[in-house]
Amino acid sequence: MHPRLTFALAIMEAIAILSYAISGLVEARTKRLDGVGTFLVAMATAFGGGTVRDILLDRRPFSWVEHQWYPIVIFVLCCFAPMVLRTFDRVINERVLLVTDAIGLGLFSISGTSRALDAQMPWFVASMMGVATGVFGGIIRDVICNEVPLILRDSRPYATCALVGCWVYLLLDYINFDTVYSVLIATGFILVARLVTFKLDVRLPH
Amino acid sequence: MHPRLTFALAIMEAIAILSYAISGLVEARTKRLDGVGTFLVAMATAFGGGTVRDILLDRRPFSWVEHQWYPIVIFVLCCFAPMVLRTFDRVINERVLLVTDAIGLGLFSISGTSRALDAQMPWFVASMMGVATGVFGGIIRDVICNEVPLILRDSRPYATCALVGCWVYLLLDYINFDTVYSVLIATGFILVARLVTFKLDVRLPH
Amino acid sequence: MHPRLTFALAIMEAIAILSYAISGLVEARTKRLDGVGTFLVAMATAFGGGTVRDILLDRRPFSWVEHQWYPIVIFVLCCFAPMVLRTFDRVINERVLLVTDAIGLGLFSISGTSRALDAQMPWFVASMMGVATGVFGGIIRDVICNEVPLILRDSRPYATCALVGCWVYLLLDYINFDTVYSVLIATGFILVARLVTFKLDVRLPH
Repeated sequence: MHPRLTFALAIMEAIAILSYAISGLVEARTKRLDGVGTFLVAMATAFGGGTVRDILLDRRPFSWVEHQWYPIVIFVLCCFAPMVLRTFDRVINERVLLVTDAIGLGLFSISGTSRALDAQMPWFVASMMGVATGVFGGIIRDVICNEVPLILRDSRPYATCALVGCWVYLLLDYINFDTVYSVLIATGFILVARLVTFKLDVRLPH
Repeated sequence: MHPRLTFALAIMEAIAILSYAISGLVEARTKRLDGVGTFLVAMATAFGGGTVRDILLDRRPFSWVEHQWYPIVIFVLCCFAPMVLRTFDRVINERVLLVTDAIGLGLFSISGTSRALDAQMPWFVASMMGVATGVFGGIIRDVICNEVPLILRDSRPYATCALVGCWVYLLLDYINFDTVYSVLIATGFILVARLVTFKLDVRLPH
Repeated sequence: MHPRLTFALAIMEAIAILSYAISGLVEARTKRLDGVGTFLVAMATAFGGGTVRDILLDRRPFSWVEHQWYPIVIFVLCCFAPMVLRTFDRVINERVLLVTDAIGLGLFSISGTSRALDAQMPWFVASMMGVATGVFGGIIRDVICNEVPLILRDSRPYATCALVGCWVYLLLDYINFDTVYSVLIATGFILVARLVTFKLDVRLPH
């Protein structure tokens, strides 16, 4: 892989993890959880999807065990949550969050599919595990906070974009397209699909 | 095993899985989940119990990984959920659902107990894992849909029938009764116990 | 280890497990769950934290598989739940429960941290797994019973005491202090910290 691509992917991953963690942090604050509660919900949102996938694939170590700095950074963010949220209100608006969350959805779903394929999962199961990686963080967040998971009940396509993107990746993998470019194309597909369907206010039939 | 028995068990298993999946589908529709959300809830209901048991036993592959056609069929059902539910309202009534669900409860609980024994679990733990296989699908469905699990709060015996059936199986296994017949007898016991207690409106004390 | 210490630790563990199980039993009764439902919630509360930790560490057998008598005792308690709760109201008051629960929080958190270190987890992750061992039982109880987890939303420090105690243990371990005494000191720290902050009505900022 080109070193620039590696670097770009690492940056995107950091953005995605932080973006998921912050969505957990915001939800935890609305439920008035304490510092450690906020941390648990933020961690579950950021790493829940990948952890569920790794448990299903019987794969260790988890990414948050390998990269201990992620939990430490999220812990510090949660300790200063009121301050973080105030700064964050000034600097970051909903549109930015929508984009960073879509980057996370794309990256997590495609990396999940790719790891499931590495573990010899059949194709449909691999795409399911990809979507699970992308959306289970948010599901666990909402289950702990006692809500019907938002991403399952939103009429705007969210998990659906992730699923179609995983199929794009499976197709590219099937025709033996270069892996790095497949990841980038499929991740970009999910990102663009999520933003375009959101912008055009596409609604799924109930 | 006689080929006819194998065939009968395979048919019963398909009925049980579809019956559990449809109960997830119905619940997901009442919560107005989208297509992928409906699929996740239907899958969790149909395979959640077995997956929890296999994670506890550290057993792979999961049945929905080995038999990829089950998730694919459930996915297609969920894509056409409104149509499926309309047809289903015309063809299938509550009494049919009660019977198919009881078949599922019996089969899943006994196969769970049997697999836990194969993994050298002690007898009481094996019966717990059997019940968990039978009821965790419904529990996960209700937790995702933000309800107190129905099968834990129903005053009619449900999990209790499963538990007693698992003990029947353990007893037959203890006296070295033929495994296939033990499975059939214990499954039949749960099926009949569930239907009879339902019909007689037996209530557990709270 | 001195045989008296081993004995004291075993007694404390039994008190902790029963205390957690009874808190599950009480919660299950307020939700009017049936006998098997009460048992599942009591088991999840008593062993949920350790089971989640062991799944994350890929460690088997679970303690409730190794010590089958615990689930059997809890099952008997749940079968006679109304009678148990009546006796219990007469004999045990809230203050006793607070102390037994604090013993559980201390023991589970420190034993969780210690097992995570044995499994070569990095230090911060080990302290997270310690806290998870102490608090996930209660979280699973509340999620099944459809409540926002109490221990995450209580403004009195609960998980926070556990986290600081885990760090005390990590520090003692780092300076190669004797393991048995480290466990006792850190467990005692959590116990005292919980009781003192409760007594002084210390509140965490939201």
